[in-house]
Amino acid sequence: MNEKLSMQDLGRLSSDEFKAINKNKIILVLDNVRSLNNVGSAFRTADAFLIEEIYICGVTGIPPKPEIEKTALGATATVFWKYFKTTQLALEELKLNNYFIASVEQAKNSIKLNQFQKPLQPIALVFGNEVYGVEQEIINQSDVCLEIPQFGTKHSFNVSVSMGIVLWELLR
Amino acid sequence: MNEKLSMQDLGRLSSDEFKAINKNKIILVLDNVRSLNNVGSAFRTADAFLIEEIYICGVTGIPPKPEIEKTALGATATVFWKYFKTTQLALEELKLNNYFIASVEQAKNSIKLNQFQKPLQPIALVFGNEVYGVEQEIINQSDVCLEIPQFGTKHSFNVSVSMGIVLWELLR
Repeated sequence: MNEKLSMQDLGRLSSDEFKAINKNKIILVLDNVRSLNNVGSAFRTADAFLIEEIYICGVTGIPPKPEIEKTALGATATVFWKYFKTTQLALEELKLNNYFIASVEQAKNSIKLNQFQKPLQPIALVFGNEVYGVEQEIINQSDVCLEIPQFGTKHSFNVSVSMGIVLWELLR
Repeated sequence: MNEKLSMQDLGRLSSDEFKAINKNKIILVLDNVRSLNNVGSAFRTADAFLIEEIYICGVTGIPPKPEIEKTALGATATVFWKYFKTTQLALEELKLNNYFIASVEQAKNSIKLNQFQKPLQPIALVFGNEVYGVEQEIINQSDVCLEIPQFGTKHSFNVSVSMGIVLWELLR
């Protein structure tokens, strides 16, 4: 029988081990994400993929909040995060620290996710507002726009789903 | 300037075009998924990836429902779906139609998603309840368990995020 694994079998990290371990050099930038559900999901996904930090910008909600915890399931206590009043300020800090800025957005010159060559620099992945996407001024200052190819009738993926897909592609 | 693309620029399918077009031979099976948010997200992601059909099983909610629409954003009108009283009944129909059954679950003999060799048969991907995962009897009848490798402190990914990651990996 192919038994399901218990939490113990899975041998997950403790909160302290997580904080001490070497992370993937990827920072998630939440550019005015409106849904607290999506913020919580960012934390949960960032925990699973050992992401360095989450930069929470503008109107994006910050922990602690019950609606964030509902999807974060405690990952707000493990994943590092920092709040910036504007995404512009976050970008300035990232550029100062030599991060490659990749906005996840469907734009004129965007690169398909499966054709993206990972740079040697650390990467900042910018995810935008559920309705307006990443701000145009932020795109103008990005090194690249990454697009997840899609073939149906809708405009885009849910932000939480996009984060999962892009992180998986970069780390698989 | 790297301008964002409008819905018109993106050239998405119309609802009628979507229904008529050849789909990817993948069926999503929702095995007692409790959150209507996750059901809606399944529809939205299935639309983007041109998925053949969604099999909705057991206690999983069916459209139309406002909480499903909140995340489906209309994709319940494009993606085909069918309801089964139990996941067992869905599996019987899938096996009759020669589908390869892959349960997305962390189990003793699960295969890491990045090491999975896609079969030639059409594929049914089973996603389980948010707390209990895929039912053990369903796993026992599956051809394989697929596991998304994860490295943090939490037990698992959100169901919506898992669906995005697994579909991207199979179709990228």
